[in-house]
Amino acid sequence: MRREIQLLDSTLREGEQFAGAYFSAEQRRSIVSLLDAVGVPMIELPSPIASPDTRQAVEDLCALGTRAKLVAHVRCAEADVLAALETPVYGLNLFYGTSTELRSFSHGRRIEQIITDAVPLIKRVRAEGRYVRFSAEDAFRSDLIDLLTVFDAAVEAGAQRIGLPDTVGVATPREVERMIRLCAERYPGVGIEFHGHNDTGCAIANTVAALEGGADCLDVTVLGIGERNGIASLSGLLAQMYIHYPELLPSYDLTRLPLLDQYVAQSLNVAIPFNNPITAPGAFTHRAGIHTKAVLRNPRAYEILNPLDFGLVRSVDVGSRYTGRYAVG
Amino acid sequence: MRREIQLLDSTLREGEQFAGAYFSAEQRRSIVSLLDAVGVPMIELPSPIASPDTRQAVEDLCALGTRAKLVAHVRCAEADVLAALETPVYGLNLFYGTSTELRSFSHGRRIEQIITDAVPLIKRVRAEGRYVRFSAEDAFRSDLIDLLTVFDAAVEAGAQRIGLPDTVGVATPREVERMIRLCAERYPGVGIEFHGHNDTGCAIANTVAALEGGADCLDVTVLGIGERNGIASLSGLLAQMYIHYPELLPSYDLTRLPLLDQYVAQSLNVAIPFNNPITAPGAFTHRAGIHTKAVLRNPRAYEILNPLDFGLVRSVDVGSRYTGRYAVG
Ligand SMILES: O=C(O)CCC(=O)C(=O)O
Ligand SMILES: O=C(O)CCC(=O)C(=O)O
Ligand SMILES: [Cu+2]
Ligand SMILES: [Cu+2]
Repeated sequence: MRREIQLLDSTLREGEQFAGAYFSAEQRRSIVSLLDAVGVPMIELPSPIASPDTRQAVEDLCALGTRAKLVAHVRCAEADVLAALETPVYGLNLFYGTSTELRSFSHGRRIEQIITDAVPLIKRVRAEGRYVRFSAEDAFRSDLIDLLTVFDAAVEAGAQRIGLPDTVGVATPREVERMIRLCAERYPGVGIEFHGHNDTGCAIANTVAALEGGADCLDVTVLGIGERNGIASLSGLLAQMYIHYPELLPSYDLTRLPLLDQYVAQSLNVAIPFNNPITAPGAFTHRAGIHTKAVLRNPRAYEILNPLDFGLVRSVDVGSRYTGRYAVG
Repeated sequence: MRREIQLLDSTLREGEQFAGAYFSAEQRRSIVSLLDAVGVPMIELPSPIASPDTRQAVEDLCALGTRAKLVAHVRCAEADVLAALETPVYGLNLFYGTSTELRSFSHGRRIEQIITDAVPLIKRVRAEGRYVRFSAEDAFRSDLIDLLTVFDAAVEAGAQRIGLPDTVGVATPREVERMIRLCAERYPGVGIEFHGHNDTGCAIANTVAALEGGADCLDVTVLGIGERNGIASLSGLLAQMYIHYPELLPSYDLTRLPLLDQYVAQSLNVAIPFNNPITAPGAFTHRAGIHTKAVLRNPRAYEILNPLDFGLVRSVDVGSRYTGRYAVG
């Protein structure tokens, strides 16, 4: 790992696109503070132009004075960029759909038009001294020439990072790694961001593949909430880093993760999904007889994550029909 | 894809190791029937020696006369194998821990002893004319020499398939693919099975990696329930096959999947996790303004799975603060 790897949490932007999510002003502040306590270095907020309420929220959250850098997620439209620049955000995450599907059914613009729209806005943000990332929405269904043509122009205009979102959750880990590596090699002077949707259940694996391909910024949300069935979860990425990239962990306080996950679940009025890494209710529950017997001798038998490192405890379930005299499962 | 790929559902075995799972006799029958209706070709049941109730359940489920083949999951112990052979199961899925962790903290046996225990039992099952698979529990933390020494003996003894479970959820897609390929090349005459836990959130990606490495049998459970935070989900694998391996789908009736997922969730008294592919409540809900606008023009803009193929409908959420006049998210 040469580059510094940053997680970007988008719970308040992507996460609010989750069916049923609506955070109050107080909840937004608590979520940002809890993310900051965990040690997430970047937090993405919705576009200030969305509504007066959103703009106020962005101002308020910036006033919290977090260690985390707050960025606004903003369309490549002049009014949107100007509205964001009126707030004290650290920077802007610009995006523009580059796939045939989005060009046809979403904004209807051609590649040349995308460049004509984006370039002056990127320059404008840089001229204001703010951070700017440019992302090609639906990158993994975009033609490679289109994608690179747009990225070439964005980097030339001064974008400090380019983003490759798998907007519809269609990519495989292998494709993600290859495409990220290709961009990391072509654009050595800028950062590379990845954002992976979970439609085919591979958001976490794809995000780790991006890290391996050379990405330096990985998008997550708390519990993985987002459009449709969401994106990679913060707890999933932390579990991966714990096992495979422990050198990335020192800047995180893992013991703060359970409270964050619980807080967001409560705010959404849902349970933490039982398949969630680390903070699922049963993530450290051992049940089959041969599991419980071994875990009582040494938890490492059936545990690769130590619950204590996350401020949690294991539970050895000896009341089920899988334990006791006939314990054979 | 040269070989035929089979999904093996282990909801009634691995799934019952899930904290809180306890299926009634009627629920077990319904789950097996629903799995059969979906078209899952193999179903794993718990070991008949576990209790008189389990033995009766295995008998009853065999009596359903499903198209799916029913196999019992059985320790390499003579009494356990004999009890399973007294039931009319199609075959036995034997397993034995081969990692240092399991040899030290679970059964305490050395590699030679594992072979001495397993070989006569494999031969015994074959002599009865039943199918036999031999699995090296915790394969991905096992020393390669130990693992291959045990597999060599199992294959020599007549095992028709070998299993590589990632028992603690530590493997990466790349490792899984490499290890499965190595075994597929070393044991060309037998099938290869993979079983992936989700502790680091990669169960589905690892299972797809196994398929790509040459596995011909992939373990899943309904909703991914299992020990700790579970294994790969049936819906996750079907979503993957739908996108990346459509040639494997004709033997499945995808429209039966939602009922199966709902039935199991209800039986467990939990909600379908919102991150579950296909059947999560919001899996086909579109919310951000630019998403809803485009999806109303053409759903392919933000959908790679067609909900109609699963007997489901999409929902375009136009009531949220992300839509309407200021829709910019
Ligand atoms: O701006 C981005 O990179 C991501 C936008 C988004 O949520 C997506 O494409 O899924
Ligand atoms: O028998 C097998 O292959 C799998 C056993 C099991 O559930 C595991 O190792 O996680
Ligand atoms: Cu997204
Ligand atoms: Cu298992």
